[in-house]
Amino acid sequence: MTATSAHAEDANRPAPKAVLFDTFGTVVDWRSSLIRQFEVFAGETGVAGNWAAVADAWRREYAPSMNRVRVGASPWKTLDQLHRESLATVLSELGIAGVRPDDLDRLSLAWHRLSPWPDAVEGLQRLKRRYVIGPLSNGNVALLVNMAKFAQLPWDVVPGSDIFRHYKPDPEIYLGVCDLLSLAPHDVMLAAAHGSDLAAARSCGLQTAYFPRPLEYGGPGARPLDPGSAVQQDWDILASDIEDLATQLGA
Amino acid sequence: MTATSAHAEDANRPAPKAVLFDTFGTVVDWRSSLIRQFEVFAGETGVAGNWAAVADAWRREYAPSMNRVRVGASPWKTLDQLHRESLATVLSELGIAGVRPDDLDRLSLAWHRLSPWPDAVEGLQRLKRRYVIGPLSNGNVALLVNMAKFAQLPWDVVPGSDIFRHYKPDPEIYLGVCDLLSLAPHDVMLAAAHGSDLAAARSCGLQTAYFPRPLEYGGPGARPLDPGSAVQQDWDILASDIEDLATQLGA
Repeated sequence: MTATSAHAEDANRPAPKAVLFDTFGTVVDWRSSLIRQFEVFAGETGVAGNWAAVADAWRREYAPSMNRVRVGASPWKTLDQLHRESLATVLSELGIAGVRPDDLDRLSLAWHRLSPWPDAVEGLQRLKRRYVIGPLSNGNVALLVNMAKFAQLPWDVVPGSDIFRHYKPDPEIYLGVCDLLSLAPHDVMLAAAHGSDLAAARSCGLQTAYFPRPLEYGGPGARPLDPGSAVQQDWDILASDIEDLATQLGA
Repeated sequence: MTATSAHAEDANRPAPKAVLFDTFGTVVDWRSSLIRQFEVFAGETGVAGNWAAVADAWRREYAPSMNRVRVGASPWKTLDQLHRESLATVLSELGIAGVRPDDLDRLSLAWHRLSPWPDAVEGLQRLKRRYVIGPLSNGNVALLVNMAKFAQLPWDVVPGSDIFRHYKPDPEIYLGVCDLLSLAPHDVMLAAAHGSDLAAARSCGLQTAYFPRPLEYGGPGARPLDPGSAVQQDWDILASDIEDLATQLGA
């Protein structure tokens, strides 16, 4: 289906009842938000560092840290806990000294204070009038609730990964969210800027919507930190951003 | 503490970070909303009944049906499932014939379409500006999400009982919600029109706010279906309704 032919419902695809979103990178701009918070911290404390490099190295630890939980090499840990551990590792590896434990606590929660992409809030407000909307994210509930308060994301429901004790791409989280909403997978659409996430959702029976976020990893030429995010399939909807998704879904 | 001396924070009580609400009876008027939906159904189908008596009998099954789950006499069932079973029982006991299985499916979900008390939406909108707000209810997530869409309740988070597989007054649900929010119990306030609910929350360490709903069971003289709801203690806040609670909490 091409972007121009997609609409709320067509012969091959019933209208979804819920439209759920990957969050980091898809709804919020994690990279510039982290760098901004590191720079504020540096200004307050005098701790010096290449904060773009810290943000990228921190994000590079993201999938491996969850994978250790997914394969059972680690007991369940929330994303907040994983973020704290991986930030400590990154700061040590990059030789950044002077970050005290309470600073580490506070900086670990920088993911609670991520700014939305410019189209996100208005697009979500439009979708909310017609659909149940929420994140379908690896974030824990507290992280996602605080992010929503900070970024003014008008979610109807916030099913964090800690409810399921599974991380994407485990099917348990995609199917678990559908179950909590009392919806069949084909009544739920995942929207994401990452193909690997959509592929996993599709294998669980969910509908899929893709839009690109070319600035997620920095400038327009920056490459994804996770190559799997570039996976391409014939997604149910191709959009330019969340406002366009709302238009295509008749909202 | 009296209503006039309460405010967002005082020497004995820190300001909460989240204010959570019992829903049925406290935020929404279940009785008149059910009767209204039964009357629409009767008008469409010609099925005759004393719908106020049906609503009251249905509600009377509420606590016993959950208690069977709580004590292990029944496997876990969502409130939607319990509502369907108990409505079938009630219709049979009251001799109301002609309700087909698909009607029963639809009527069972009448709890998804309950109207708010007149102060609820404005009061919650005010509280939302300063606090994390959400239900702390025996409803399952789908019920609470659909209720919020119907009644325009601006929740930040919707932690239904099916996440915990426990019903109030089990401590697992009060403490489980605090855990999901990454908050200590003393940072969370439960607001309810039922003393038994507040007493259970207090025993878990939560703050408590009470306001009466004199019309919950019908006219001003109607008695509670559950005598425990009339339990009185020296709650942290006494309010007249949700708007007054918002005022007392500085929102």
